[in-house]
Amino acid sequence: MISKIIIGVDLGGTKILTGILSRDGKVLGTPVKIQTGGTEPVEMIIKRITDSVELSLSNIGSSISDVMGIGIGATGPLDIDGGVILECPQLPTMHFFPLRKTIEDYFGVPVYLNNDANCLILGECIFGAAANRKNVIGFTLGTGLGCAIILDRKIFNGSTGTAAEIWPSPYQSGTIEDFISGAGVSKIYKSISGEDKSSLDVFHLAVQGDEQALQTWKEFGAHLAVPLSWSINMIDPDIVVIGGSIANAYNFFKISMEETLKKWICPVPSQKTKIVPAELGDFAGFIGAACLVIGNN
Amino acid sequence: MISKIIIGVDLGGTKILTGILSRDGKVLGTPVKIQTGGTEPVEMIIKRITDSVELSLSNIGSSISDVMGIGIGATGPLDIDGGVILECPQLPTMHFFPLRKTIEDYFGVPVYLNNDANCLILGECIFGAAANRKNVIGFTLGTGLGCAIILDRKIFNGSTGTAAEIWPSPYQSGTIEDFISGAGVSKIYKSISGEDKSSLDVFHLAVQGDEQALQTWKEFGAHLAVPLSWSINMIDPDIVVIGGSIANAYNFFKISMEETLKKWICPVPSQKTKIVPAELGDFAGFIGAACLVIGNN
Repeated sequence: MISKIIIGVDLGGTKILTGILSRDGKVLGTPVKIQTGGTEPVEMIIKRITDSVELSLSNIGSSISDVMGIGIGATGPLDIDGGVILECPQLPTMHFFPLRKTIEDYFGVPVYLNNDANCLILGECIFGAAANRKNVIGFTLGTGLGCAIILDRKIFNGSTGTAAEIWPSPYQSGTIEDFISGAGVSKIYKSISGEDKSSLDVFHLAVQGDEQALQTWKEFGAHLAVPLSWSINMIDPDIVVIGGSIANAYNFFKISMEETLKKWICPVPSQKTKIVPAELGDFAGFIGAACLVIGNN
Repeated sequence: MISKIIIGVDLGGTKILTGILSRDGKVLGTPVKIQTGGTEPVEMIIKRITDSVELSLSNIGSSISDVMGIGIGATGPLDIDGGVILECPQLPTMHFFPLRKTIEDYFGVPVYLNNDANCLILGECIFGAAANRKNVIGFTLGTGLGCAIILDRKIFNGSTGTAAEIWPSPYQSGTIEDFISGAGVSKIYKSISGEDKSSLDVFHLAVQGDEQALQTWKEFGAHLAVPLSWSINMIDPDIVVIGGSIANAYNFFKISMEETLKKWICPVPSQKTKIVPAELGDFAGFIGAACLVIGNN
């Protein structure tokens, strides 16, 4: 009997990253990265997705008959139950497009769709920083604030598929995403230095020991304690995983985040709840998408 | 075959309310209300609990052999898995007392323990405002801010039994409970009128049409939208039930709560998620406690 392989597709507005995973979490061959061309006609985007799957398979000398299923982690919002992309700003030609069914019809294998933040944290729950934990919250810190809840290795989607979408929650005079986002890091840095820098620049400056950049990450950590405390108080998880591009700066915001958080959570979880950085690195997106197949089998 | 009855005990720092429920949610006989004497020796409190159960049974001509189980909803914090009262400020003589085992040994029937806010909302999920809903959040607005999550008619306790304990979460310069509590209502009223009044007084004044009291409830509703938005964004429930003594003022804070909330939750839930007042009234505490037995059978 051949151990079947799984395909994960990380579908963003800018790039598609597709890779193959064994049942025990090993990446097989070299993942395929291509430009999404997110504003081009939907047929072209679908062709790029199917091409990336076929190329990944031919790279390891396999065919679709070896594939157990395909998981797609897409930038949202999505209709998860229906397998449909909703009015996603990064994929304007795909609004209300039945992505899951289209890919399923093309390849004739089961296809699962969920949002990229959910997939990323699902991957960490199965093969990464939260492996073997029952009750997990994940934060994805990138352009915006993503969050996911994983209970017993299943993504908790809520009643309308928007569970853990905490980005519009109120904070100060706006929303929490005004601070917990790439733009938020830039805004904090500007309030300290008067200069415009991207969050990546502020990270590199911190690596070089720049005081204003280090202060920015310290303040960012204190702001991050706000959504962490609300979500830990709500879910009471075993562990919180922090991933996404901004998590590269984890060691610069860790101490202020932890110190501020202690004031705002219940005594027992403040002793017990672990907070850790994500472990799966650059491939976390497609590994997590592939985990949708594992979670459903 | 005799249809077995269920006993619910609502154990607060001030009073014990014990009643009998049929399997289909009917209150049988007259519930028994006695003073807890929360600061007296633990043996005396236990005797009052067992007396209240025996008196409830004799009132309807039943005995313990007719009882399927006893549910106790207690003021917390609790070790729910262990069935133990922790360092509860309202029950100082009961710290670390094994309440569940003590009552179980006395009566020889299964006993279930959970916190009063969880029980209250569980009751609403089984027989009240959220009957037949899968995914429910409940808020209990009284002296403090209680919250509960009920998934598939089971209380979601989290990893350390503190799921939904959102009261210490940050808001403005303090915690959300500084506003969403009896003391919070008094503080808002004082900021408007300069006068000290209890939340009950502010409710009665609003009933009489007092402008400052009406303004207080309007502001309270806007503050209440803060924990509502964070918890709705996190859980994406079918329905939110608002109970507790302060929910008597529901119609005074409803509009400002709903209007403010719309700004801070995702587009889909903002259309679909229902928010409703609790329905079970004065007996909600012991009915909810009794529902612990139904939920476990």
